Amino acid sequence: MEREHFSKVFDEELNTIREKLLEMGGKVEVMIANSMKSLVERDSELAERTIAFDHEINHLEMEIDERCLEVLARRQPAARDLRFITLALKIVTDLERIGDQCTGIAKRAKELNMEPPLKPYIDLPRMADWASMMVKEALDAFVRGDDTLAIKVCKDDQFVDELNEQIQRELLTFMMGDPSTISRAIKVNYISKCLERIADHATNVAEMVIFMVKGKDIRHTIA
Amino acid sequence: MEREHFSKVFDEELNTIREKLLEMGGKVEVMIANSMKSLVERDSELAERTIAFDHEINHLEMEIDERCLEVLARRQPAARDLRFITLALKIVTDLERIGDQCTGIAKRAKELNMEPPLKPYIDLPRMADWASMMVKEALDAFVRGDDTLAIKVCKDDQFVDELNEQIQRELLTFMMGDPSTISRAIKVNYISKCLERIADHATNVAEMVIFMVKGKDIRHTIA
Repeated sequence: MEREHFSKVFDEELNTIREKLLEMGGKVEVMIANSMKSLVERDSELAERTIAFDHEINHLEMEIDERCLEVLARRQPAARDLRFITLALKIVTDLERIGDQCTGIAKRAKELNMEPPLKPYIDLPRMADWASMMVKEALDAFVRGDDTLAIKVCKDDQFVDELNEQIQRELLTFMMGDPSTISRAIKVNYISKCLERIADHATNVAEMVIFMVKGKDIRHTIA
Repeated sequence: MEREHFSKVFDEELNTIREKLLEMGGKVEVMIANSMKSLVERDSELAERTIAFDHEINHLEMEIDERCLEVLARRQPAARDLRFITLALKIVTDLERIGDQCTGIAKRAKELNMEPPLKPYIDLPRMADWASMMVKEALDAFVRGDDTLAIKVCKDDQFVDELNEQIQRELLTFMMGDPSTISRAIKVNYISKCLERIADHATNVAEMVIFMVKGKDIRHTIA
């Protein structure tokens, strides 16, 4: 009975960590969407709000970290649970840094909104959608222990990398053709890099999930 | 007696993690130095070797991760030791990503070495020296539990950010003045960003050290 109670409370604690991580993931997705919206719709006020919102992500990072440490100290979990908690600790760091990237996008958006538009944004929102989906799927894969989904995320990263390269090439032709576009093109290029890094963070999470599920480290074996 | 033996073995295990982390840090410093040397001295062969060397960093990441998990599972550490191990888990991730940044620098160096030099590199090597010192000091602060040194690292980050901005401004004037330099300037700019990110990783580590020592999370309170 004592043991059953212990196990029930422990399960609840793990569930709370799971839920908090998903909550953090959901907020990060909102940040990705809003930072891009502030760029595409030239909405600098939304950019400001997005930058301020990063505070909530940071707060969740600290909260989840503390919860993980508490569970490790009080429950002394083993095997699979231990791996779950230590990966949760690493994953919050990735999520928090995705928030930082969104802040970077919103800051550049504010600057770009003060100048004439360089060109309509087509590939950047596509890239953002992919990156956001990768973040969501990587977290889903984590909480469900779904390595098939995690492998999909790792593969999707290549498409985002290709989009980033395509955008960079296009911006280069702009800059070559008209030097007055250089300053703006560099900012758009920065945003593209931010999105690529968001996708990289999602990939990192997915690789760690595969490790958790398979107990095998593929982080540095997949090309 | 039994207890004393346990505590001695446990201490040795923590020491091994400490040493392995310093070893990984030392190798990362070599990667920073060599990636920059391959650029400044136009040594593409060294760039190749630097890219290949990343394998060793990745290997150490996996090894330290495994050691941390083993200690958590078998020793069930509490309080300060627990915090040490969970931060070690996070820190290896930062170190591994510094290795990735060095790989990025070496790849760009190889490309730049195939074209005429854009300009002598003065600020970039300075930035690399600072970033490398920050990595070293952040790790020293970690293994010694020295929050004063960690605070210094956080402050130094500002100087690296300023150098990065200065380099970006300078490259912009190059590109504006002569569009034929744009493609090379973008690559130099990329390298500058890589160094800035290395310094960011060192800062992340330092912030976590302050958290470990003070038991207080300053990650999102220092401006």
